[in-house]
Amino acid sequence: MIEDKNADNQYTPLENIGEFGLIERIAKATARGLDTTVKGIGDDAAVIDHSDLQTVVTTDCLVENVHFDFTYTPLKHLGYKSIAVNISDLAAMGAKPTSVLVSIAASNRMSVEALEEIYSGMQLACERYNVEIVGGDTTSSLSGLMISITALGTVEKDKAIYREGAQPHELIVVTGDLGAAYAGLQVLEREKAVFKDNPHLQPDLSEYEYLLQRLLKPEARVDILPMLEDLELRPTAMLDISDGLSSELLHLCKASGLGCKIFEDKLPVDPAVFKVCEEMQLNATTAAINGGEDYELLMTLPLYAHEKIKGNPHFTVIGHMTQENDPPLLVTNTGEMLPLKAQGWNSFQ
Amino acid sequence: MIEDKNADNQYTPLENIGEFGLIERIAKATARGLDTTVKGIGDDAAVIDHSDLQTVVTTDCLVENVHFDFTYTPLKHLGYKSIAVNISDLAAMGAKPTSVLVSIAASNRMSVEALEEIYSGMQLACERYNVEIVGGDTTSSLSGLMISITALGTVEKDKAIYREGAQPHELIVVTGDLGAAYAGLQVLEREKAVFKDNPHLQPDLSEYEYLLQRLLKPEARVDILPMLEDLELRPTAMLDISDGLSSELLHLCKASGLGCKIFEDKLPVDPAVFKVCEEMQLNATTAAINGGEDYELLMTLPLYAHEKIKGNPHFTVIGHMTQENDPPLLVTNTGEMLPLKAQGWNSFQ
Repeated sequence: MIEDKNADNQYTPLENIGEFGLIERIAKATARGLDTTVKGIGDDAAVIDHSDLQTVVTTDCLVENVHFDFTYTPLKHLGYKSIAVNISDLAAMGAKPTSVLVSIAASNRMSVEALEEIYSGMQLACERYNVEIVGGDTTSSLSGLMISITALGTVEKDKAIYREGAQPHELIVVTGDLGAAYAGLQVLEREKAVFKDNPHLQPDLSEYEYLLQRLLKPEARVDILPMLEDLELRPTAMLDISDGLSSELLHLCKASGLGCKIFEDKLPVDPAVFKVCEEMQLNATTAAINGGEDYELLMTLPLYAHEKIKGNPHFTVIGHMTQENDPPLLVTNTGEMLPLKAQGWNSFQ
Repeated sequence: MIEDKNADNQYTPLENIGEFGLIERIAKATARGLDTTVKGIGDDAAVIDHSDLQTVVTTDCLVENVHFDFTYTPLKHLGYKSIAVNISDLAAMGAKPTSVLVSIAASNRMSVEALEEIYSGMQLACERYNVEIVGGDTTSSLSGLMISITALGTVEKDKAIYREGAQPHELIVVTGDLGAAYAGLQVLEREKAVFKDNPHLQPDLSEYEYLLQRLLKPEARVDILPMLEDLELRPTAMLDISDGLSSELLHLCKASGLGCKIFEDKLPVDPAVFKVCEEMQLNATTAAINGGEDYELLMTLPLYAHEKIKGNPHFTVIGHMTQENDPPLLVTNTGEMLPLKAQGWNSFQ
């Protein structure tokens, strides 16, 4: 799909325009002239003006066949997602994103058009989140594609929201719904297997649209912080759910030095997830707590927040923090108490 | 060397400690408690306090068998170099480095000890340049090792030094000497070929020590800016020489909208480079202007700087800027004028 296998096709091999040609194209296509960008692409480094705010910075790496599979990942979506997952990290710190750096290692057999398609997805995300690509690096790889993104944002002094800070009895709240990205991945893996057996079969994936969108084009919840501000609420601890609820909740408990109790029947799960789990004989709760890639926010809020978020479709109270030395627990529908385990994403296993 | 091929060796496979175990080890080994680090490794993002200074940020990617070869690259040197080359970019902006983010994609067959060796080299560089690793990402790759570094620093408002800004007739100045990293690479490639033919032959590389150090453990010229400040000099344009003098000078000319003239007999070349070039029938001038990886600084200075840097071993005037529309030229020892061409590093060719 992305390699220049066909001798007489219309694609431009990367080596034709070279690294500097590519940088020039990227710089032109992505410049947005934001106020924060003092100097963008095209020098040794970028200069960013965050005035007297603190700078928040995060980086994430996406590796072909580890984090994405070209069999079913559209290039534009890949570009969009690579930006969105970093913006999600900034949102989880309570920060406002401003700038992005993009490093790409690509095979020199990859076409310029394919890379431009990835950058066009990035550019869409930059517009959506009002950030600008201010720098990066383009280099060749001897194997697959690797995208490394660094995102910068700002936060007022002492206003960053960390993983620690949760207090006993506080509410554990998640935004949106959980498990959809995982269910989407199961659908695509199934279709990939079908396709291998019979390449002429065109799958109808329209009924899985929500799940696939959650997997392939996730959104960062930059809308949550302003919502909380309007409600005059401030999370005591927060992180984004990239590796699965269970894994993230364990981070939060460890960092805050507390235990927790969450309830299976409170987990927000979209009906489409239940449907796929039934079809494929999977456990929907497992999808919700261990699936990962949901990019929703997990936070703790003081008890009085309950009145303010009750009925708000963006927030679901799934449990509460417990005391120091208490274990992190999942209370099942049948009342069983299971210890929470980190079975989420671990790229080395 | 770095893969866990031997079933009964003493190395710990990465999968034994997993991503979070690795992050914990890295966080412990690298924490330095700098004032600028409000929040370091271990949350969704890092928080950095640059007060009312502008943030300067750069990123660079090192890919196995593209940028380094494990046959002759010690792991610790690789770690050191990966930090140093990014600090070099900040130095070239006139910025003061503060923080670093490290993303590593490694095969899960790589040992924990090998990764820790890389990080120990990074840590050495962090101490040398007084920066701190504040975040990053560790993930698996299906092929070789990939290291992506982002470095942040500060600069006073309007004090960043860009590629543009050079004026006609200004002096073109380089720090240190050129071509040594390239010569070092030729030596190592030669020894690698010898080693392949006869693995029992131990090469004596002691006479090439300077060249190898320049290639394997380059230093960023963070010492230059304070020196210039003491001399009350400020470059009108500056960049670091990573892709070769010729290529960087063309960037400077293009950005400043001017031509230039540099002189072959002025190029600062270490005697060891001449020696290797003679041994291997290479052209020392080619090594100096197209070799790359020197990580020296290339700058333009006003004419009156000449008196101030005359005899200073850190600075060499190699030529001067010319008018708009003039070509960038190399004046050879025989008086010939050759157009400068970018034959430096282009990773896609």
